[in-house]
Amino acid sequence: MEKGEDKHEEEQDQVVNPWEVTAKDGGKIDYDKLIDKFGCQRLEEPLVDRVQRLTGRPPHVFLRRGVFFAHRDFDEILNAYEKGKKFYLYTGRGPSSEALHLGHLVPFMFTKYLQDAFKVPLVIQLTDDEKCMWKNLSVEECQRLARENAKDIIACGFDITKTFIFSDFDYVGGSFYKNMVRIAKCVTYNKVVGIFGFSGEDHIGKVGFPPIQAAPSFPSSFPHLFSGKDDLRCLIPCAIDQDPYFRMTRDVAPRLGYHKPSLIESSFFPALQGETGKMSASDPNSAIYVTDSAKVIKNKINKYAFSGGQDSVEKHRELGANLEVDIPVKYLSFFLEDDAELEHIKTEYGAGRMLTGEVKKRLADVLTEVVDRHRAARAAVTEEMVDAFMAVRPLPNMFD
Amino acid sequence: MEKGEDKHEEEQDQVVNPWEVTAKDGGKIDYDKLIDKFGCQRLEEPLVDRVQRLTGRPPHVFLRRGVFFAHRDFDEILNAYEKGKKFYLYTGRGPSSEALHLGHLVPFMFTKYLQDAFKVPLVIQLTDDEKCMWKNLSVEECQRLARENAKDIIACGFDITKTFIFSDFDYVGGSFYKNMVRIAKCVTYNKVVGIFGFSGEDHIGKVGFPPIQAAPSFPSSFPHLFSGKDDLRCLIPCAIDQDPYFRMTRDVAPRLGYHKPSLIESSFFPALQGETGKMSASDPNSAIYVTDSAKVIKNKINKYAFSGGQDSVEKHRELGANLEVDIPVKYLSFFLEDDAELEHIKTEYGAGRMLTGEVKKRLADVLTEVVDRHRAARAAVTEEMVDAFMAVRPLPNMFD
Repeated sequence: MEKGEDKHEEEQDQVVNPWEVTAKDGGKIDYDKLIDKFGCQRLEEPLVDRVQRLTGRPPHVFLRRGVFFAHRDFDEILNAYEKGKKFYLYTGRGPSSEALHLGHLVPFMFTKYLQDAFKVPLVIQLTDDEKCMWKNLSVEECQRLARENAKDIIACGFDITKTFIFSDFDYVGGSFYKNMVRIAKCVTYNKVVGIFGFSGEDHIGKVGFPPIQAAPSFPSSFPHLFSGKDDLRCLIPCAIDQDPYFRMTRDVAPRLGYHKPSLIESSFFPALQGETGKMSASDPNSAIYVTDSAKVIKNKINKYAFSGGQDSVEKHRELGANLEVDIPVKYLSFFLEDDAELEHIKTEYGAGRMLTGEVKKRLADVLTEVVDRHRAARAAVTEEMVDAFMAVRPLPNMFD
Repeated sequence: MEKGEDKHEEEQDQVVNPWEVTAKDGGKIDYDKLIDKFGCQRLEEPLVDRVQRLTGRPPHVFLRRGVFFAHRDFDEILNAYEKGKKFYLYTGRGPSSEALHLGHLVPFMFTKYLQDAFKVPLVIQLTDDEKCMWKNLSVEECQRLARENAKDIIACGFDITKTFIFSDFDYVGGSFYKNMVRIAKCVTYNKVVGIFGFSGEDHIGKVGFPPIQAAPSFPSSFPHLFSGKDDLRCLIPCAIDQDPYFRMTRDVAPRLGYHKPSLIESSFFPALQGETGKMSASDPNSAIYVTDSAKVIKNKINKYAFSGGQDSVEKHRELGANLEVDIPVKYLSFFLEDDAELEHIKTEYGAGRMLTGEVKKRLADVLTEVVDRHRAARAAVTEEMVDAFMAVRPLPNMFD
């Protein structure tokens, strides 16, 4: 059995599962503790170096700065890749809102890098069925949101010759459904209660959902792509709150004759107000949305971004900023590509020579650029492109 | 809420659910108690007469002899029919074995009569996924069995212009899957435990299955047949052990804006050894199979059919047979169409003027004819016919 499974959350402890991310006593998420509890592995420097060596590209910002900080058997993917064996990527999104925020883009930006660097196919699952079951949303509304979200995902620049995007309401059936049944047979109710914390008052749609998120981990769920390639390995880039699904999947995989999927897992993109968990979808001021204008971005950062700077300029010049809790620096470490500039800001700001206002101004510029670029790319995504990415079709050049 | 739901079986009481049929203390199933417990209605004489009046046909043997003895809102179907509103029929089978026995044919023979009498479309669900999850059978084996069983079903004489047969592994997806999700959202885990008696060690495939059997009760699960006909009523002929599924379905229906499906429910075809429940699939000598030869049928009846006759000819002539427990008479009441002859046999046998051997001989002839007719019809079913019945296609003349 995968380590970390079936441990119930203790009360008052931090809670991290696919539907809730809460730090202990309103503090920061303790990622070391999470690695230990989930039983995954820390993504160390040598593995990052190895990615660079194998792909001949500098590692992505998210890799070299530890945004993706944990993994399961990522080394095995690299071992196989080194021997000339390809793999496929699987990631996804639960489409519950129209506008994505920057945190939503993190896994997709990173997955695009992985696709480009390793030249491998990618399947992207839109769990419209999950959102219909968890939220008070109709089937039709979830399908609409899935399609809108697909446009944002496509705007991240995925290669259409290597990428299949699907919504569950469209795609569940056939080989995919057969794998769902095979997986469901291997997982008891007590097991999902242990992993996901369901209660008897939860509806059976929730209880039955985990195999749906597990199924894309097995190549036979995509006969139009991977027919006859049951031996193909799968790498899943995701935020670490999705780990429970894939612990379950990895436990089941050998019993069905498949490789366990490998994982590469990110920390959470923090809320503007500070690092106590994931951003809250119910508070629009907790996040920068890809639809925010330059003015809104500037205002949100100035008003809400939690600063590690001191209360007065004098004190700041004397003590410097506390970079550990400073959100502008944290956000820059995600989106400012220039390592030297980031180091410079951290040094100057930490020493008190740079003020919060200056850092926030730089952040507003950086995020505005990211958001503007995304908005332009999304505006260029046509309905025909969505249809093309979502068409059930072979991808003859997916490994080229 | 539908009456009868959420009542747990008491220990030592009779157990009737889709996977177990056991009488109390090895006695007979108490159908009156079952009607009371499930909360369905007894199918009385006036309703049978009404069927005859509305269809202009003599009621089927199974109707006039009380094989179909219970219902839920069958009168509402007839009310609607009388006003010129059509309905559709839904029945099904879990394909867990190659050879069907006579008990398996009962719902299909009756459903064919309903289709012919009311001139309505019919959907037949083969729950290959259910059998894969409940039995130790592979996906592929269940799909093979589904197709083999489809041949037996087609051999019952269904009208291909009004009949759609589907296997879940083939058909789950799209509109059908959307209804599964809508239904699952309305049913808690505690609810299915109350209805079906699942335990925490049961796998989540079982927990998630009930919406799959519920979905065909709603016309929107078949857009190729009933698009724009969401108001169409559904009548489900089935054995009464399937009632739990449809209690659940009827509870959910109004919340999804559909009519509750109506039911017409049969008692169980008894084992040769006596009426203590359904036949046991694990004991081939407990049933007559549609593959049995005339000689095997004769031998099984002579050797295993429980007789209500007396131990000696003298005693029999004096006391007569106990028709209440006599299996040959019971079987004849299912398959001997001639009412006058059946009455004659019951009178003579009950009075001791007819011997068990004579009744068994007549039964062997009757069943051999049924089985021979079925075997000939099945032999004429080609793979192309199976494909044709199972093709997802509109049925333009389904109400003619």
